[in-house]
Amino acid sequence: VHVLLLPGDGIGPEVVAAAQRVLELVGHRTGYRFVFSEDLVGGAAIDAYGTPLRDETIEMALRSDAVFLGAVGGPKWDHLPKATRPEAGLLRLRKELGLFANLRPVRVFDPLADATPLKPEIVRGVDLIVVRELTGGLYFGQPSELRREPTGRWAIDTLPYREEEIARIVDLAFQLARARRRKVTSVDKANVLNTSALWREVASEIGQRYPDVTLEHALVDSCAMRLVARPRDFDVLVMENLFGDILSDEAAVLAGSLGMLPSASLHGQPPQRPGSPAVRFGLYEPVHGSAPDIAGKGIANPIGAILSAALLVRWTLGNERAATAIEQAVEETLASGARTADLARPGEPAMGTEAFTDRLLERLA
Amino acid sequence: VHVLLLPGDGIGPEVVAAAQRVLELVGHRTGYRFVFSEDLVGGAAIDAYGTPLRDETIEMALRSDAVFLGAVGGPKWDHLPKATRPEAGLLRLRKELGLFANLRPVRVFDPLADATPLKPEIVRGVDLIVVRELTGGLYFGQPSELRREPTGRWAIDTLPYREEEIARIVDLAFQLARARRRKVTSVDKANVLNTSALWREVASEIGQRYPDVTLEHALVDSCAMRLVARPRDFDVLVMENLFGDILSDEAAVLAGSLGMLPSASLHGQPPQRPGSPAVRFGLYEPVHGSAPDIAGKGIANPIGAILSAALLVRWTLGNERAATAIEQAVEETLASGARTADLARPGEPAMGTEAFTDRLLERLA
Ligand SMILES: CC(C)[C@H](C(=O)O)[C@@H](O)C(=O)O
Ligand SMILES: CC(C)[C@H](C(=O)O)[C@@H](O)C(=O)O
Repeated sequence: VHVLLLPGDGIGPEVVAAAQRVLELVGHRTGYRFVFSEDLVGGAAIDAYGTPLRDETIEMALRSDAVFLGAVGGPKWDHLPKATRPEAGLLRLRKELGLFANLRPVRVFDPLADATPLKPEIVRGVDLIVVRELTGGLYFGQPSELRREPTGRWAIDTLPYREEEIARIVDLAFQLARARRRKVTSVDKANVLNTSALWREVASEIGQRYPDVTLEHALVDSCAMRLVARPRDFDVLVMENLFGDILSDEAAVLAGSLGMLPSASLHGQPPQRPGSPAVRFGLYEPVHGSAPDIAGKGIANPIGAILSAALLVRWTLGNERAATAIEQAVEETLASGARTADLARPGEPAMGTEAFTDRLLERLA
Repeated sequence: VHVLLLPGDGIGPEVVAAAQRVLELVGHRTGYRFVFSEDLVGGAAIDAYGTPLRDETIEMALRSDAVFLGAVGGPKWDHLPKATRPEAGLLRLRKELGLFANLRPVRVFDPLADATPLKPEIVRGVDLIVVRELTGGLYFGQPSELRREPTGRWAIDTLPYREEEIARIVDLAFQLARARRRKVTSVDKANVLNTSALWREVASEIGQRYPDVTLEHALVDSCAMRLVARPRDFDVLVMENLFGDILSDEAAVLAGSLGMLPSASLHGQPPQRPGSPAVRFGLYEPVHGSAPDIAGKGIANPIGAILSAALLVRWTLGNERAATAIEQAVEETLASGARTADLARPGEPAMGTEAFTDRLLERLA
């Protein structure tokens, strides 16, 4: 199994190292042979090569079974024009690899049910997944420009969606729901946006093919409220790119820390690398960013990255059992009292990234 | 003082009636003479006149000092094409009256600090205001269409902003901050959107004119998280139309119920009605919707509407003292244990809209 590591910026390298150790142990125990290659992306690539994403990197990704990304960006590169910033590398990678489906599971681990800003009775048992469209909408729509004219500056972004782009992601959401609690919440702003009106129409049509799954439409504004007020209402949520960006970060509150959340970005194509028939290509990355304020200190929470490794095992290798074992080890490590700085309460001792990962590997072994 | 009442749909009429009673009492005690006129809007206007907003209604609004709106929309009109639905009436009203500034204060009343999904120590003392741009962005940008073509359906919405549109709303946010805790959080997605890059640029420029106010830029995704995780971080938040729609509904969680939140929509023009020099025109409406499920039952929470009446007194009449008295009466009524159904805990007795309003009027008198 070929995995391309793209640690990126800030705490990216620290958490990717933790995830790699987990994958190596899983490989050791289950007989997969992981072959890791590595490249720079984001700010690190700008510093070394003058571009946030080299063509060579895309080629390396296409020759791999999976890509594991850390995080990109930081104040060092914030002054650059948007098109050449670290984030542009990540967006191009998603687009060129055709990764239209971004899966962001949010699960509340019981030992943390009391460690969130929400009341434990609200978050206990939450187990939802945000399915975010990742290669369309405002992130890629043209025209997108900022003009400086004598009469003043103006800017424009464009939000386009085609029916197929909506259908394939909504269909995936229904497939996921079938293996879960059989409920899909399709999120839109259909009372204002035409793209949302189309979204709702297509979602309803797809829904008819899944009579065993309940489809609910929700407006993005009221959903933003319900997501924290009654998060157990939700099973699978599906929505366009920017709504997914906002609501999945919001949902991180439920898990106690943004550092907890994994993500998988998938496409609908057959695997590209000959000889790996059972393998489905995917890009895996924690939802959190590069966190420049704590970078290099060895205190980052590796759970988002480790749970992303679990998703790699689940989606790319198709090994549900080994994936669950990783998630189980996370839960047990938390239950043993281990906490990284973002999770520790005031006064409670915090473990560093490596120490936490050591503890987790012991459980997993 | 001429106030045009537009009760609208669902629970709109019930909560507007409560707000009207409050205004009448305030008028009685402070010497203002309120003259109320009334018209239909939204679904009610569709049923009566075939349009969600008549030109006559706009003219009536322009001849008034303030407009007080209930809520629009409901499943009965959801099948209509977007351009003729109840919501279209509200959007046209905002646009034609030039109401570019939507102010949504979120204050946690101490008696409710334990009645939200969040831990009391997180929400106690929260006092923030979301300043939402209301006449630009995706809500009004062209092209906005849904096309059904032989090759498939597609849709497009457009997100445009001109520098003046950003400058005037950000400037208002800074003015508000000066009278508060002197902190402005400007929310955008500047790492992806060009409109956000312009927003950030203009916000920074305006900020330089207010050296006594701290300006912070926040990405909308991470702000959606902080808003529930550390809401006391915020004083004044300012953002474009759709971000404001989403984040202000999310912020309702802090107050315990969407039924608690008031809003004021203002423009920058001089007052339109000759002879009312001290009066500033505004449209006032609770943030909540028409809640068709509880309409007509007399159980709606009137607090959002009553606090909107307080904003009318503050912004249109400029009477800070009378406005504060209304807010104080809300707090005292809650402290006395009065709860509407949305606020009552399971098993706790709930008061109806009128009974709650009676209790509040006693305090205010
Ligand atoms: C870094 C940024 C471009 C990215 C996004 O908005 O997609 C991030 O916020 C995410 O959610 O993965
Ligand atoms: C009814 C709808 C068009 C409206 C909006 O999106 O502006 C509402 O959600 C609001 O926030 O006032």
